[in-house]
Amino acid sequence: MALTVGELARALGGEVQGDKSVAVTGVSSIYDPIPGTLTLAAEKKYLKYLRQTTASCVIIGKDLDLGAVRVKPGVSIIRVRDPVSAFEKAVQMILPSPVKYRRGIHKTAVISKTAKLGKNILIGPHCVLEDFSEVRNGSVLIAGVYVGRQSRIGTDCLIYPNVTIRERVTIGDRVIIHSGSVLGSDGFGYRQEGTRHIKIPQLGTVEIADDVEIGACVTIDRARFARTFIGSGTKIDNLVHIAHNVVAGSDCLIIAQVGVAGSTKIGKDSIIAGQAGIDGHLELGESVRVAGKSGVTGDVPSGETVAGYPAQPHIREKRCRAAVRRLPELLPKVKELEERLSALEKTAKNYSKRVHRRGKRSSHR
Amino acid sequence: MALTVGELARALGGEVQGDKSVAVTGVSSIYDPIPGTLTLAAEKKYLKYLRQTTASCVIIGKDLDLGAVRVKPGVSIIRVRDPVSAFEKAVQMILPSPVKYRRGIHKTAVISKTAKLGKNILIGPHCVLEDFSEVRNGSVLIAGVYVGRQSRIGTDCLIYPNVTIRERVTIGDRVIIHSGSVLGSDGFGYRQEGTRHIKIPQLGTVEIADDVEIGACVTIDRARFARTFIGSGTKIDNLVHIAHNVVAGSDCLIIAQVGVAGSTKIGKDSIIAGQAGIDGHLELGESVRVAGKSGVTGDVPSGETVAGYPAQPHIREKRCRAAVRRLPELLPKVKELEERLSALEKTAKNYSKRVHRRGKRSSHR
Amino acid sequence: MALTVGELARALGGEVQGDKSVAVTGVSSIYDPIPGTLTLAAEKKYLKYLRQTTASCVIIGKDLDLGAVRVKPGVSIIRVRDPVSAFEKAVQMILPSPVKYRRGIHKTAVISKTAKLGKNILIGPHCVLEDFSEVRNGSVLIAGVYVGRQSRIGTDCLIYPNVTIRERVTIGDRVIIHSGSVLGSDGFGYRQEGTRHIKIPQLGTVEIADDVEIGACVTIDRARFARTFIGSGTKIDNLVHIAHNVVAGSDCLIIAQVGVAGSTKIGKDSIIAGQAGIDGHLELGESVRVAGKSGVTGDVPSGETVAGYPAQPHIREKRCRAAVRRLPELLPKVKELEERLSALEKTAKNYSKRVHRRGKRSSHR
Repeated sequence: MALTVGELARALGGEVQGDKSVAVTGVSSIYDPIPGTLTLAAEKKYLKYLRQTTASCVIIGKDLDLGAVRVKPGVSIIRVRDPVSAFEKAVQMILPSPVKYRRGIHKTAVISKTAKLGKNILIGPHCVLEDFSEVRNGSVLIAGVYVGRQSRIGTDCLIYPNVTIRERVTIGDRVIIHSGSVLGSDGFGYRQEGTRHIKIPQLGTVEIADDVEIGACVTIDRARFARTFIGSGTKIDNLVHIAHNVVAGSDCLIIAQVGVAGSTKIGKDSIIAGQAGIDGHLELGESVRVAGKSGVTGDVPSGETVAGYPAQPHIREKRCRAAVRRLPELLPKVKELEERLSALEKTAKNYSKRVHRRGKRSSHR
Repeated sequence: MALTVGELARALGGEVQGDKSVAVTGVSSIYDPIPGTLTLAAEKKYLKYLRQTTASCVIIGKDLDLGAVRVKPGVSIIRVRDPVSAFEKAVQMILPSPVKYRRGIHKTAVISKTAKLGKNILIGPHCVLEDFSEVRNGSVLIAGVYVGRQSRIGTDCLIYPNVTIRERVTIGDRVIIHSGSVLGSDGFGYRQEGTRHIKIPQLGTVEIADDVEIGACVTIDRARFARTFIGSGTKIDNLVHIAHNVVAGSDCLIIAQVGVAGSTKIGKDSIIAGQAGIDGHLELGESVRVAGKSGVTGDVPSGETVAGYPAQPHIREKRCRAAVRRLPELLPKVKELEERLSALEKTAKNYSKRVHRRGKRSSHR
Repeated sequence: MALTVGELARALGGEVQGDKSVAVTGVSSIYDPIPGTLTLAAEKKYLKYLRQTTASCVIIGKDLDLGAVRVKPGVSIIRVRDPVSAFEKAVQMILPSPVKYRRGIHKTAVISKTAKLGKNILIGPHCVLEDFSEVRNGSVLIAGVYVGRQSRIGTDCLIYPNVTIRERVTIGDRVIIHSGSVLGSDGFGYRQEGTRHIKIPQLGTVEIADDVEIGACVTIDRARFARTFIGSGTKIDNLVHIAHNVVAGSDCLIIAQVGVAGSTKIGKDSIIAGQAGIDGHLELGESVRVAGKSGVTGDVPSGETVAGYPAQPHIREKRCRAAVRRLPELLPKVKELEERLSALEKTAKNYSKRVHRRGKRSSHR
């Protein structure tokens, strides 16, 4: 919704410096300002961006001293007591509210007669619900979502378009799954017969607990015979791979492009940073931190922060990396030391001879 | 299917220790036990998990000595001669069998009149078959699968929901493709005109040989003018990227999140471990092993195992890594050596003066 | 289209050595030759492949000296002045031209009455256009494409099957988006309440400028309140992750499996190589180069090439890596130096005693 600077200031209880009649039609970041928008300079360090900003209006703290910064002429300023809260309020006034999805069963959805449907749900266009699948009260499947045989989606879930949920997958309540993700694909399991890889049937399933959020294009494989499990409240970012029989505890954060190999256990409250890889059959304790791009090849005790590949305690890895940085100077230094040492050895040998000779001379005297 | 411990033991030819009347309704992993399920302790090292297990029944070997391990009270034990085989048999009795997909053409599928359809196939809901595409006998396209113009899917293939197969892609027999995967997307090819990147048409194709399995959200780009090729029996895990003109031999394993850049050749029987990256225009021989997270920047001879970035022979990489681990202690050591050397040099200089002086004194005498 | 070698040579103005009547039905790479096809040996270094090629015909330069290379008997050669251009011309004659998509609205597409449709567009099977969405003149949505509420697709775009474009996303003109990609998924943003992660609403959007190409299974998250932005002419390869509020300049190349964390800015004309990861809230200048697999943890000035993790100037990283390669020999060398030094120190001490004693003797005299 478009508002004038004056209207905004009034709603936020702020004071305007500059033109009150300027229209604000959107919101932009202080780093990426856009004409016609409102932006925020929450702290002193952001003030420098105001010299050249193309935003039309900026919220800053009541008492923030502009110092030497001259805000670009034409930019209106709204001064408020709590700029972060005021900005969040302004965002809600200016931006359209999140989409409210209609409820109902779209006529193009293909739903088995044996599927069980709750109340107040949306089964959007081109969704498919196979035999004995279930969608509980309040859940929304926007479009093109596939739900396999005997799979169950809990209450108040939000499943974005083009998600695939294979057979016998169980999804808890208030789970959000973003587009392109795949739950219940076969685990990567083969046995060797000569040079051929013979598929081991993946008969297990995937279980997603309550309040989990799964990003876009995430793949979570079904277990060989038991379950792959994501604990309640755990949040998974985009393009993450979770292999068969992985068990992730509750309230973990698994950042983008992480891969977790088969049968590994991750304790609750852990954070696995982006592009890290975790080997199979490992046990990571609770509140573990794995740094970005790490490769974890051994168990990690609770509370530990690990980094590097193979991952080791973070502090140690930092020291190793710092040492590597100094290596190019170390090599010639060692060479120099060797040369000096050789020279000294030679000298010592010469002395030795002379001293020996003189010693002999002395003793002859 | 639910069975009692007694029924299971009878079917497996095993002997029960504990309550035969307990019901078993599922299967769980020794690492992630679930009440009401059967689990397996195939080897001695797994026995420790039985102290606290919440599973209801465990299969162990006839002669496996429990030693000091006291299995949690209330857990029934079935003793059998071959615990792994018995467990696999039990899994098949307890777990529902894999989904058997119906055959037929769903009324919501959109199929060109020029498409060629074999016998005993499933073209599921919302599939699209473009002009001159072909699906041969026995193949199953579950739902939402797109098959482009002139593409061909061989016999007895299994294509999971929401797979995209672009035009002129050829897929062999008994190929499995998991959800979200894309075959035949354009190769990433541009020529530079000033600062602009001008698209080079990608006119080639993708060819998948027999018995290949492709994981979820895998991308295999079409060749510039020839083909991108995946050899027979090769298995590709989730979220793998195969660039244009890559040629992978037969019976390879390409683990999750690997990326292979353009025109690289991988010999048969090779294993590329997770999150490895392989540069373009390289030649990897047969039976090559690439360790996880490696970055391969040069050709790899047959039979070689490489690791690290840039990848080098595995043994050498291990030695380098071990050396890096000791670096933080090496730097102060070298500093100490230098100090000691300097001290010694100083001493030597002093001696030299004294000896010289004395030498002179001696000769004066 | 099948042509004989003679027909090809005539069309290309080339001279045939060998059988003119051989039929050419396809094109193959010099690395991956296929019977019945034409291939190219553009430079001397490719000639060696002709000894064993299974291709039927090869184009080579008029004056290229075969030297000691004996082309496999039965392979026809076409000699031309400019082999690369001739080959490209031949490719266009032999290979089917790119698919020309029909225009129109498919009856299975689900289109809101409030959606705005341009002229000469294709809305293919099973596409969904939500309320107030817009597709401008000449754009093609092949199949299974979801376009959210108030999203806009510019003119002459090509959106491949099974792409998801969430609400309020803006896409410029001549943009190509490959299958499986997701634009506008929620940014990965949570605030902590005790151990729970509470979702921060992601109210912003994604803006894609003109002439952008986005690969398969790419995820571009919507901003928290402003926009995630991809500049004009930028090309993104497969399986790339772009987090919320990222701003990428124009004419960048972002290669496969790269991940860019939230709020990072990438200047124009930059190249981010495969599997690199870039931390959040960073500023990369213009014409930056990031080497493959790098992990960028700090700002990068314009024109800089960085590599490694944490990324540093490329030249420095190369020196560090080279030094690491020599580490296994350095450690024993340092040990050896220490032993030699200790020996020398011992000798020096002995001399010192002798000299001291002798000195005393001398002074006693």
